[in-house]
This record gives sequence, C-alpha cells and structure tokens, in this order.
Amino acid sequence: MDYGLFFVYLIACGAAAATGALFPTGAWYMALKKPVWNPPNWVFPVAWMSLYLLMSAAAARAATFEGASLGLALWSVQIAFNTLWTPVFFGLKRMRAALVPMAGLWLSVTATCLVFFTLDFWAGLMFVPYVVWVTVAGALNLALVQLNPEVAGGQTA
Amino acid sequence: MDYGLFFVYLIACGAAAATGALFPTGAWYMALKKPVWNPPNWVFPVAWMSLYLLMSAAAARAATFEGASLGLALWSVQIAFNTLWTPVFFGLKRMRAALVPMAGLWLSVTATCLVFFTLDFWAGLMFVPYVVWVTVAGALNLALVQLNPEVAGGQTA
Repeated sequence: MDYGLFFVYLIACGAAAATGALFPTGAWYMALKKPVWNPPNWVFPVAWMSLYLLMSAAAARAATFEGASLGLALWSVQIAFNTLWTPVFFGLKRMRAALVPMAGLWLSVTATCLVFFTLDFWAGLMFVPYVVWVTVAGALNLALVQLNPEVAGGQTA
Repeated sequence: MDYGLFFVYLIACGAAAATGALFPTGAWYMALKKPVWNPPNWVFPVAWMSLYLLMSAAAARAATFEGASLGLALWSVQIAFNTLWTPVFFGLKRMRAALVPMAGLWLSVTATCLVFFTLDFWAGLMFVPYVVWVTVAGALNLALVQLNPEVAGGQTA
C-alpha cells in the first residue's frame, strides 16, 4: 500500500464525511417510521469512519497494481455519489429523490469492488464491507420511502 | 485517451453536476450584493459543462501514462469537494462555511493540474481552464461573503 495515496484518498473521504456534520439528522428524521431492522443511531458514524479508512486503504493498495485505472475511476464515481446522497436525503429531505444517488452509489461501489478483486484479493476484500453497508443503507432508504410515503417527496419542517 | 475511462469519469462529474439542479440559485442569491466583475448567470452552466468534459478527458488521458496514481487520487479529491460545495452554498446558504470546501476544491484542482503536467502536457493543459474557473469561483465566494456579511453565515429565507 502507498501511504501517500492513502492520505490523499482519505482527504476525498473527508469531503464526503463532512456532509454528515453539515447535514445532520433532525427531528423530522427521528419522527419517521423505521423498519424493525433499522440499525441503532450510534452504528452509522462508526460504520462510516471504518469504511472511509477501508476504502482509502483499498484504493491505495489497488493503485500499486498494473491496470488499476478503471478501478480508480470507479472509486471517483462512488465518492462523488457518496458526497451527493447526504445533502439530498438530510438536506433537502427528499427521500424518494435520494434513491437515485443511492442507486448510483450502490452500482459504483459494487463495480469498484469487483474490479479491485480482479487486481488484488486484498483490495477487493477491503471493499466488501462497503458493499454490504451500502446494500443496508439502500434498503433502509427504500424502506423509509415505503413506510413514510406522505413525506418521501420532501418536507419543509 | 481511453474512451471507456472518459465515460466513467463523466459519470462522476454527473453526480457533481446534479447538485446544480438539486440546489438551484434562488431569490436569496439574486438579492445578494454582487461584485462588478460577477459573470452573467448564463456563463455558469456553460462553464461547468465544458469543464466536466475537459476534466474527464484529462483524467482519461492521464490514466494512460505510467505513474498516474497520484494525479488520479487527487482527481477523486477534487470531485468530492466539487460535489460538496454546492449543497453548502446554495442548500444551506452558508456562504462563509462554503469557503472551506472551496479552498479544498481550489487546492485539489491546482494539485491535480500540476501533477497531470508532470505526466503529460495535454492532460495538464486540459485542467488549466478548471484552475482559472475555480479561482474565479473562489474569488466570487469570498466577495459575496465580504459584500453581504449580515447573511454570510446562513439564512433561513
């Protein structure tokens, strides 16, 4: 793994992570009907911090292999969708519209994971928790839309 | 240039570009005091569309050269800051806070441009208009904060 690259990728994650602080969950979110399998609140920041470290390490490792261009390009796509999702969901409170960047995030994370596996087993493996988590996050986004249809298009309060 | 990579990078730009549609300028922005050198409104989408094409082409070209990892990692950083800035400025209307992602964007765009130049003249050159534009955008963000200090911290209207 290239530690300089790890640090650069971690800065990109920092921009994505900043959305969590800038667009926090509010009373409107707490009041939503949640699915029974909704993870407890403390899980989210812990999961994201762990995933940011893992996805940066995976990219910094993948970059040391020949033919890494496609995987690194897909990594750029996923971090852009990652940064986009939070302002749409928690900023605009448009849960239904947020399914679009969520779909983009899921597809780009899964594609990055698969392409990283073709380069190196460990780089791919470090992306597996991210695929799992984004699958959970996508299912949660969808469940919240279905359980709260009257506010899924957005609300001003 | 690798056209497959160009397309993948363009998808990342699409996520960034979506912020322009999701967090549009509103009456509050129109009412701000502007510097005399403020570009006309139509310039912004034209400039961004051109820059998204250029930055994707630059990355797809840079990726074909040996030792492109650092430049491509920096490209990931800039697209994340690019996606972050609009929701902070136009979504939260926090013009002063938006100077932080703007600084991150300027630094990462300039660094990407410099590193691309070390790989290939044309890849670097395709990033020069982006450096120029982000310098203008950063100066405009700063001027708007200085000209409208009473609302630069955010407003609810």
